[in-house]
Amino acid sequence: MPKHFLSLLDYTPDDLARTLALAAELKTARRARTATPHATALAGRHVGLLFEKPSLRTRVTFTIGVGELGGSVVDIPSDVMHADREPLHDVARNLERWVDAVVIRTFAQARLTIFTESAPGLRIVNALSDEEHPCQALADMQTLQEHWGSVEGRTIAFVGDGNNVATSLVHAGLMLGAHMRIATPKGYGLPPDVAEVAGRIAMKGAELKQYVDPKEAVKGADAIYTDVWTSMGQEVEYAERSKTFSRYQVNDAMMARAKADALFMHCLPAHRGQEVSDDVMESSASVAFDQAENRLHAQKAMLVALFADKG
Amino acid sequence: MPKHFLSLLDYTPDDLARTLALAAELKTARRARTATPHATALAGRHVGLLFEKPSLRTRVTFTIGVGELGGSVVDIPSDVMHADREPLHDVARNLERWVDAVVIRTFAQARLTIFTESAPGLRIVNALSDEEHPCQALADMQTLQEHWGSVEGRTIAFVGDGNNVATSLVHAGLMLGAHMRIATPKGYGLPPDVAEVAGRIAMKGAELKQYVDPKEAVKGADAIYTDVWTSMGQEVEYAERSKTFSRYQVNDAMMARAKADALFMHCLPAHRGQEVSDDVMESSASVAFDQAENRLHAQKAMLVALFADKG
Amino acid sequence: MPKHFLSLLDYTPDDLARTLALAAELKTARRARTATPHATALAGRHVGLLFEKPSLRTRVTFTIGVGELGGSVVDIPSDVMHADREPLHDVARNLERWVDAVVIRTFAQARLTIFTESAPGLRIVNALSDEEHPCQALADMQTLQEHWGSVEGRTIAFVGDGNNVATSLVHAGLMLGAHMRIATPKGYGLPPDVAEVAGRIAMKGAELKQYVDPKEAVKGADAIYTDVWTSMGQEVEYAERSKTFSRYQVNDAMMARAKADALFMHCLPAHRGQEVSDDVMESSASVAFDQAENRLHAQKAMLVALFADKG
Repeated sequence: MPKHFLSLLDYTPDDLARTLALAAELKTARRARTATPHATALAGRHVGLLFEKPSLRTRVTFTIGVGELGGSVVDIPSDVMHADREPLHDVARNLERWVDAVVIRTFAQARLTIFTESAPGLRIVNALSDEEHPCQALADMQTLQEHWGSVEGRTIAFVGDGNNVATSLVHAGLMLGAHMRIATPKGYGLPPDVAEVAGRIAMKGAELKQYVDPKEAVKGADAIYTDVWTSMGQEVEYAERSKTFSRYQVNDAMMARAKADALFMHCLPAHRGQEVSDDVMESSASVAFDQAENRLHAQKAMLVALFADKG
Repeated sequence: MPKHFLSLLDYTPDDLARTLALAAELKTARRARTATPHATALAGRHVGLLFEKPSLRTRVTFTIGVGELGGSVVDIPSDVMHADREPLHDVARNLERWVDAVVIRTFAQARLTIFTESAPGLRIVNALSDEEHPCQALADMQTLQEHWGSVEGRTIAFVGDGNNVATSLVHAGLMLGAHMRIATPKGYGLPPDVAEVAGRIAMKGAELKQYVDPKEAVKGADAIYTDVWTSMGQEVEYAERSKTFSRYQVNDAMMARAKADALFMHCLPAHRGQEVSDDVMESSASVAFDQAENRLHAQKAMLVALFADKG
Repeated sequence: MPKHFLSLLDYTPDDLARTLALAAELKTARRARTATPHATALAGRHVGLLFEKPSLRTRVTFTIGVGELGGSVVDIPSDVMHADREPLHDVARNLERWVDAVVIRTFAQARLTIFTESAPGLRIVNALSDEEHPCQALADMQTLQEHWGSVEGRTIAFVGDGNNVATSLVHAGLMLGAHMRIATPKGYGLPPDVAEVAGRIAMKGAELKQYVDPKEAVKGADAIYTDVWTSMGQEVEYAERSKTFSRYQVNDAMMARAKADALFMHCLPAHRGQEVSDDVMESSASVAFDQAENRLHAQKAMLVALFADKG
């Protein structure tokens, strides 16, 4: 298992499979309130939480998750992210002296690299950057495995903005053998490096296809996934994006083009009437709150792996 | 015992009596630093704290109280209360997946209802709304029982604004058999439904009387209670309220009209020179800091009951 | 051991020596992950953290430190420091009912006195005031003992602003027998009472000398210490201070005047190009991050002493 969890590309397909198996095990144990040896996996460990953006799911799930593994969280004031008081390089070297890991929610992925390069004693977790959202993708895959057993050979259509959520979803889906279809307006597609890496990471038979027409992308899909059209930090583009993405809304008509038992996925928060209709969001096809719950279990599994067999 | 603690009206008189008995027991054990089986009452439980208003007493007592019962607290960012990022309905359904209870300090009581209706898996505690402040009333009754043994047949005069604190005080006092006198300026009386419910909840012989003249209300009382004239959110009314309430100040002259050993009560923060004189606040009659301390013990007792015999 | 830790002047030289010995012991145990009886020194204890200023090192080290001693921390909202909502005198009397100690980072040392006088049940720790920074000085002395065994007879030169860090450094250094040299621009020297108390607290042979010329002060020194020229709250003086202090920068030329193996010390955050050059900050002479780490260990030792043999 890798020392950091910055990207799903840090994982081998086997790392991913094992983490998801543990996530399922931890979920079962939590629901049954049964004891698990993992309850002390982080005993004596301190995990810093450093969040540059507002956060509900990320803050709550990591706070609870670390505690359920026997570790302690410590909130790092978010203003340390801005270099006028202290260079981030120094902040990292301070934290290295006191904590074992830092979970970071930031804008620029480069800030994660400052931590890994400055402070070799720290394990770093990407809890959302502008480029990737690997914790979300773990929860997404756990959710799909609960419904399908395996995602291998399944077709997952992401409709909307080719953003961090889409990127990590593609990484995880390909590694587990899913066919990934990404439908975005022109100019909002996945970053070029996602397509470049696809062939290398995809399980045999799995492939990435990109579309402009959402109707084509969702045709016969096993799941349709969407995310907000305007992410945090992009608020000035709101009007333009609402117009550009209007035909990418996941509504009943869109769902009707997928398989009859297709799932609807959303990483939340959902903006009803924009990227998803209220009907779809509230339908039995929606697994959005399962995805949210699984953030907790999947991240716990990731943390157990992060601290296994290390000093 | 009820599933939620939104109002004292959720309690039967017996529920209230049992909770107060446990509160006294927990206080004794804490002061003696003796072990109590309740130290694990919330083991494995997570309690979210969601505070829409600034808070000293509420935040500290719930944080400490949950911990002393073996549970974990997790702070929920207060901005989730505002629907522009995510509907509160969805926030509740997220939290339901991770935590067992949410302690909420909010303006509108209706927001509490959104939680109870959206998320049946959550226990909800009202830690102060515009309408009621039941946790305060528990602490108030515990304080009075410490001095009087029982509040039955005693006369408690509340002087000032017929607000949330007054409402919950009336509820609790009547249920335990006290005579409740509420003196407020015209237009600042208790909400009509408080008087409507009084007859139903009052112990036999106990009654609610409302006054405009504070002197009349406190005559021969066993305790005089007041609260700030301008609550949080009403700051624009400050000048007008200060004038309207001026003759409602609890000072030595006011206390002299009550019984010789009458107690002075205040839920804090106190604004000396406004609703209470410095002399009264600092007198031996004042039990204000006992009330503050008892927030801790009473809320712990309420939480123990909330989690007893439930999945 | 004293009841509070407001100043190093609360300690006898023996108190200081014992605290530093325990700090070293706790550091060794933490690094080796070996059990220590001190892991329960604060069991059942609650420590409030009340920080009026932004803080990285102080917040993280106290949060972790209290937890590693078996205690619980509770964050006190910083706005209670401002009297418009509630007098600080009342805040203290509230906290006294719930917590055992309050760690306070404030501007005016007088605010610490309000706590000690209002709430005799509380232990109060000065985690930085405008006048003193005794927790930092503990960490500084621990760092020097690690390199030198003893600081007795050593020469420590502080170059820059005669501020709170300098004051506590002088206190601690003199008590342990170091020669303390403080070089500041005219008008930025140590407060007069530091020189007045020096003779009383200094170990035999140790002395305090004040300089205007930094070159003279650092000549042959065993360590050179500096701090930012503009502390929090002094931002309006930034331009003027930058000019006034320019020849006080600790750079290679300055270090060359000290002993060949002289240490460089900084309490962080460091502003490279101002009070210290990047070269010196990154040199092998720098022990700045050791000082930061030792905040944790030294404060834990101070807390153990604070709670020893008390009710």
